[in-house]
Amino acid sequence: MSATSRLTCPIPIARYPRILTAHGGGGSLTRSLIHDLFFAAFENPVLADEHDGAVLSQPAGRIALTTDSYVVSPLFFPGGNIGSLAVHGTVNDLAMCGARAVGLSVGFILEEGLEMDVLWRIALAMRRAADAAGVQIVTGDTKVVEKGKGDGVFINTAGVGELKHQRVIAPRSIREGDAVILSGDVGRHGVAILSAREGIAFETPVESDSALLCEPALALVDEGIDVHCMRDLTRGGLAAALIEISDTARRAIHIDEATIPVVEGVRGACEVLGLDPFYVANEGRFVAVVGGANADRAVEILQRIEVSSGSRCIGQVRAGAARVTMTGRIGVERILDLFSGEQLPRIC
Amino acid sequence: MSATSRLTCPIPIARYPRILTAHGGGGSLTRSLIHDLFFAAFENPVLADEHDGAVLSQPAGRIALTTDSYVVSPLFFPGGNIGSLAVHGTVNDLAMCGARAVGLSVGFILEEGLEMDVLWRIALAMRRAADAAGVQIVTGDTKVVEKGKGDGVFINTAGVGELKHQRVIAPRSIREGDAVILSGDVGRHGVAILSAREGIAFETPVESDSALLCEPALALVDEGIDVHCMRDLTRGGLAAALIEISDTARRAIHIDEATIPVVEGVRGACEVLGLDPFYVANEGRFVAVVGGANADRAVEILQRIEVSSGSRCIGQVRAGAARVTMTGRIGVERILDLFSGEQLPRIC
Repeated sequence: MSATSRLTCPIPIARYPRILTAHGGGGSLTRSLIHDLFFAAFENPVLADEHDGAVLSQPAGRIALTTDSYVVSPLFFPGGNIGSLAVHGTVNDLAMCGARAVGLSVGFILEEGLEMDVLWRIALAMRRAADAAGVQIVTGDTKVVEKGKGDGVFINTAGVGELKHQRVIAPRSIREGDAVILSGDVGRHGVAILSAREGIAFETPVESDSALLCEPALALVDEGIDVHCMRDLTRGGLAAALIEISDTARRAIHIDEATIPVVEGVRGACEVLGLDPFYVANEGRFVAVVGGANADRAVEILQRIEVSSGSRCIGQVRAGAARVTMTGRIGVERILDLFSGEQLPRIC
Repeated sequence: MSATSRLTCPIPIARYPRILTAHGGGGSLTRSLIHDLFFAAFENPVLADEHDGAVLSQPAGRIALTTDSYVVSPLFFPGGNIGSLAVHGTVNDLAMCGARAVGLSVGFILEEGLEMDVLWRIALAMRRAADAAGVQIVTGDTKVVEKGKGDGVFINTAGVGELKHQRVIAPRSIREGDAVILSGDVGRHGVAILSAREGIAFETPVESDSALLCEPALALVDEGIDVHCMRDLTRGGLAAALIEISDTARRAIHIDEATIPVVEGVRGACEVLGLDPFYVANEGRFVAVVGGANADRAVEILQRIEVSSGSRCIGQVRAGAARVTMTGRIGVERILDLFSGEQLPRIC
């Protein structure tokens, strides 16, 4: 029986229904948690070596390293949970470097009192997401903090990836005349979290877009597209991603509002709540900045893949100093600035 | 001026004396925190690329990946702090695989209200420790949780390392007749944390042993010692490390109590508090299990290096089923078992 087909947590719930501080103490309860729960969920030969780190084979090229911590609240939301999010986010960050994930690490910070079954469901979601990405969780760590010193579960995932090309896919590679391609509609993750957290029922229910982006991102690289930069749209949404690229590259980016898809449920929720959907978080969308001559072919490649089937060109890299401008639906151009804080805390 | 010579935090303390939730929101305050504080502390060309992940050159051999989260309380303690600990721990875990660290990631989970200057001092301590290990912090992530949902700062570090040898340094490689070498006295980290946390002043003050172990661990490998397994002694102390190796390897390990150094301050504190020093945490000690014929040479190599100058052979791998036995000072043999919980919570 594979781990993901198990319906019940392998830790005896009647005996240990919740996490105790002793589960983090390095004694037999820690060992039981790691063996009976995490090893059962993540089962693979590297983990089974039970060493301080995981040894992987020599990569075929350069490597990429990335990390993200996840503190999303609530832990489960329409379209995903902290576990799937933690795997998607780290695999996606590697994909944005043009790297294929070859190993993930996971660090759990558990609050005393967390329900064991909740942890099991999160671990299984991580396993499923890792399977879908073709990568294994090869090493990990668990800490427990006292009740009131954490919030259920925080997860850190780090990932190492392999680059099989020589491109420098990074903000500094973008050039005047490059096309900016967006992989689909924006704003769904933030709205889904907000509705789950606040118990707000919108007319059209919205699910998080949380998804793996490795297939479309690596397809661009593999098919020889002149990819200069890719970035997934997380905290701060489309606007923050473009502003960061523009700032780092010291180049101007211009986009056209009318080309950016926003589904009806997100549009309605943002109107009610006074949010700008271009600043709302996503977890399954990215922008690719590619050589202008390659724009149409890049869009075609992306549209063939389900997760990026809504791809389209939304703008260009222009001459001039670092700034992001947008032509609105009525033709007026405005500058997009970073918010000072966030629209929504603990979105990921 | 190098980052580590700065005396003051580069974030204007008068304006932002403490972390706000907005510092985690992905907007301009997040950007300021990352640029003005973390980039200033960790400054290096890979970080300056400001991408979703760090791209490193192709490793010369296999790679190792490891991770640990740090929730130590208090954040500063005699002999170290959460920042130095987070770098030492992850570099050491790589060293225990026989790997040299080539890049570290860091994930911060900050509690709203954390003093900005505390964060700066922690970041500088990480930089100093990374410099000492010859590795850079190449990528990172910052999240902020509301007051009462965290505890000042939690840090996750992950690391990727390079193996320039073909050995399998892991529990399953140990063999009957192997020697068990310990790199120095045990129990100082746990006692130092306890005294700092509880405000207990022992007759002989004890500092944490927190230190880098890459030099001695890699010296064994580089000098051709037949190293079968190495493990640093963290939560659960010497006893837990040996029990885990024995369990995973399904082999018996025997040690001799009289050979294990415990300094007077640790011995006294453990007597007062009812702790067993062999189960108390360390952060700068490790055991190496090496082929019996190599034992003396391995000890000589380790003794030449300051951090492991107190190395000695403390036991052997024996015939028989998995268990750890110890001959006590009066000659009686007993079995070492895992505690169910911990002696001290949040030790690392």
